[in-house]
Amino acid sequence: MTDARTIYPTDRVSLREVGLRDGLQLVKHFPSTEAKAAWIDEEYCAGVRHFEVGSFLPAARMPQFADVRELIDCVAALDGATSAALTMNERGVEDAIATDVDELVCVVSATEEHSRANMNRSRESAVDLVRLAAGRAHAENKIVNVGISMAFGCSIAGEVEPDEVLRLVEQCLEAGADLVGVADTVGFAGPLQVERMCRAVARVCGDRPYIVHLHDTRGMGIANASAALDAGARILDGSLGGLGGCPFAPGATGNVVFEDLVFLCETRGLATGIDIGALSRVRAIAEAEMPGEPLHGHLARAGVPPGVRWQFT
Amino acid sequence: MTDARTIYPTDRVSLREVGLRDGLQLVKHFPSTEAKAAWIDEEYCAGVRHFEVGSFLPAARMPQFADVRELIDCVAALDGATSAALTMNERGVEDAIATDVDELVCVVSATEEHSRANMNRSRESAVDLVRLAAGRAHAENKIVNVGISMAFGCSIAGEVEPDEVLRLVEQCLEAGADLVGVADTVGFAGPLQVERMCRAVARVCGDRPYIVHLHDTRGMGIANASAALDAGARILDGSLGGLGGCPFAPGATGNVVFEDLVFLCETRGLATGIDIGALSRVRAIAEAEMPGEPLHGHLARAGVPPGVRWQFT
Repeated sequence: MTDARTIYPTDRVSLREVGLRDGLQLVKHFPSTEAKAAWIDEEYCAGVRHFEVGSFLPAARMPQFADVRELIDCVAALDGATSAALTMNERGVEDAIATDVDELVCVVSATEEHSRANMNRSRESAVDLVRLAAGRAHAENKIVNVGISMAFGCSIAGEVEPDEVLRLVEQCLEAGADLVGVADTVGFAGPLQVERMCRAVARVCGDRPYIVHLHDTRGMGIANASAALDAGARILDGSLGGLGGCPFAPGATGNVVFEDLVFLCETRGLATGIDIGALSRVRAIAEAEMPGEPLHGHLARAGVPPGVRWQFT
Repeated sequence: MTDARTIYPTDRVSLREVGLRDGLQLVKHFPSTEAKAAWIDEEYCAGVRHFEVGSFLPAARMPQFADVRELIDCVAALDGATSAALTMNERGVEDAIATDVDELVCVVSATEEHSRANMNRSRESAVDLVRLAAGRAHAENKIVNVGISMAFGCSIAGEVEPDEVLRLVEQCLEAGADLVGVADTVGFAGPLQVERMCRAVARVCGDRPYIVHLHDTRGMGIANASAALDAGARILDGSLGGLGGCPFAPGATGNVVFEDLVFLCETRGLATGIDIGALSRVRAIAEAEMPGEPLHGHLARAGVPPGVRWQFT
């Protein structure tokens, strides 16, 4: 059975590119399979190793993810790279198991209201799906990652009690999740909330790693990532150009910008192995394939500061 | 003699609006005096109390600051509001002394190279100007604020030793500065650099307050502000819509966005007394008066999260 720590070593930072999944959730135009494959290849050459490549949902409903299997094969061909894909129901779990995907991603909402709106399931039923996914995945040497969405506040139910999130984290671990994530799906959190949540989640997780998934809806994305790193979090999600959003977060600016997240880590002395210039050049694919889709981020424009080593690190 | 702590009480956070000075440094189109006055009035009504309103430089060279005296009078008419203005030479100091401005702002560059390029002065001569300004200002019940520009790295000289910055801070305090600021003029810093610099500056300043002036050139602005707050900094600069930049930072996105900075503080339980919605509406003035000038920031678009109190604060 694969240990999550094989994929996410605890002695370094791991940055997950979720642009090909969360980043494409809402877009009207999406890249061709060839362009997505080039996106993966070029990011791999820039040093990225963790790719969330799509979702196992009916192609008729989500045509942007129809090629999830091809992209899993793309990643499987790259030495040391790992793929993840979303499985939102039993059928998705079975479909994922039949592929070479390394990581199944399940979602459990922090609130009952969002769970029903997003998945048409109760939270309890979502945890049952985690249990099923873990049983099937572990038999196939795959891992299961469960994201707790709306963990810092919910656009439907409003406030979310941190204890409720921690209770769900515990339930997911008991159900067999190899690692959990806390997601600020609609960008409600500030850095203190993130730092304290991370410390609390770490206590619940013990030696199992956890993921922090942040959105930049209110401009706190990088500050929140920095607070997560302060708290010891070492696995963070981001998307190229900050692509993505959430149907429940109107006007949202999307995920934390991957390029800026790399820069943040480097300023903190956390080596990412990622070349920011090479990563920024991958934006050309998104620009060409998704005309009109805004790309965010500062490093792609300003570049890395010249002639500076980080004085305190 | 006015104590800087009268203007910047140490028991709360003070946010300085520098949009009318740093924000207009490079723009081609700038607001009319009437529009600037409305900007000040509306921000005052939103809760802003600290305004940097311009620079004492020849109007022929910097026409955007020709109305600095009128704006000082504007602020003087508002109960509890304070004005600051830049004085880059002896003439500027004398001109400022003749007004009701509360705070003279001097600049000392962290590097000799930038000092000469920016002010055509050595750093020593810049510290001499601080001494002159302090002598004149204190006799008139005004304070002197000295910003150390390029404190985290210089676009001309590259790396900057923190010890060099601390030495300049000491010299400025000895020359009579009531408070000093450290400025990431070209956005080179990450949160660890800012946090550690703030702790070091605080040790040098003792009971005198200090300012943190950040630019968002590389998307670290809010993360760096959060790190400054972590370190105990309680006076931060920002500009409406993130206006501003620096002639030495090509492609720069400007100052930290004031609206987002307010949100950051509020999520941290630091009451600013500022209404983010009312503040965001002031952007209409900048939009109308400076067509084509990009306004940045997330709160103006996404708004404050509905139905959430900050769980951990």
